Amino acid sequence: MVGRAVGSKLVEVGHEVRMGSRDAGNEQGAAWAAEAGGGDAGGGGSVGTFAEAAEFGELVVNATPGLVALDVLEAANGGSSGGNLAGKVVWDISNPLDFSQGMPPTLGVVNDDSVGERIQRAFPDAQVVKALNTVNAQVMVDPASLGEQTNLFICGDDKASKGRVIEILETFGWLSGDIIDLGDITGSRALEMYLPLWLRLMNTLETPSFNIRVVRGES
Amino acid sequence: MVGRAVGSKLVEVGHEVRMGSRDAGNEQGAAWAAEAGGGDAGGGGSVGTFAEAAEFGELVVNATPGLVALDVLEAANGGSSGGNLAGKVVWDISNPLDFSQGMPPTLGVVNDDSVGERIQRAFPDAQVVKALNTVNAQVMVDPASLGEQTNLFICGDDKASKGRVIEILETFGWLSGDIIDLGDITGSRALEMYLPLWLRLMNTLETPSFNIRVVRGES
Repeated sequence: MVGRAVGSKLVEVGHEVRMGSRDAGNEQGAAWAAEAGGGDAGGGGSVGTFAEAAEFGELVVNATPGLVALDVLEAANGGSSGGNLAGKVVWDISNPLDFSQGMPPTLGVVNDDSVGERIQRAFPDAQVVKALNTVNAQVMVDPASLGEQTNLFICGDDKASKGRVIEILETFGWLSGDIIDLGDITGSRALEMYLPLWLRLMNTLETPSFNIRVVRGES
Repeated sequence: MVGRAVGSKLVEVGHEVRMGSRDAGNEQGAAWAAEAGGGDAGGGGSVGTFAEAAEFGELVVNATPGLVALDVLEAANGGSSGGNLAGKVVWDISNPLDFSQGMPPTLGVVNDDSVGERIQRAFPDAQVVKALNTVNAQVMVDPASLGEQTNLFICGDDKASKGRVIEILETFGWLSGDIIDLGDITGSRALEMYLPLWLRLMNTLETPSFNIRVVRGES
């Protein structure tokens, strides 16, 4: 759902997007590509294997469930002889939600580590940027739908890579002044550990269509 | 710091507050009581042991570090033959921050448990309410200092006890409409796991004087 929402938005604002799947013949992927192709801004959608998608992209978006992210990215990288992720920005949107013990989910990686950090350690030649995991798919690509400015958080070790992601987020409707840079990739812990509050709020508000705004005192 | 801030505010709005310490002769406690005593609203401050404070109060506030909270509350309850907490609201403001591995702290209880839940399990005859752990001491007792309405979260198994805490929070300046009830005490996980984001934001914003507001879409 996140991959389709972000993929479609990227096509809409003019990018060529290749959606990766374990199986290149994935029907959902093909349906998405047929729908996403040929927007007014000149973007287009296509599908391929994880490795084909990673090879194709200048920037790679990880919109898989957090607990399978490393396996998927290993496949995307092209296996041990690969290197499809080297030198690229890997934009990680995932959350390590573990539903195996029932609801509410726990986090499968937590406290002194995070999916964002694991990806960065596994692919040291990539520049991992964490952002967008703190809102639902619809808010990700249409923040103005909330009717009020809210905040997004970003972290990663490479400033230029964060800047590249912020540029894209601006085309989604996020204001750069509302995107708070939390520093290096260890900030992923904070962003992933926010999820239990997000889930609890979703249950309480009875909608996933919300976000938070940080209010700072004058002092 | 949290205990003194909340204790002073409670005295200011007219309550009799007994601050508990391991040692009844605690100098900081005595200094606080001398300063807090005799407000215009008729409140007053005094000090005692943890057990004396818990016996004295109609409502007990736990403002100790989360990782020692159970030990302190066991002492407050009066040991194995005690029962000072039975039938009382225990308002837990604590966070299980573990600084033993350096900065940033990790959480000593996390993911599938929380300090709030541990207290409720240890003292089943008390009504545990979690609230205020998501803001710094000064914001706790003066939310208007942020210059804008923000949200507070509350959880606990007993609705009437949450209502009692909300009444007190209103005298601190919180608006009841801004206090979001996240349901039962397992919501403590969400509130405690928010701390890593709070800490990261404090570093980024270079102030502990902030809070968040939840913005909900119209849909």
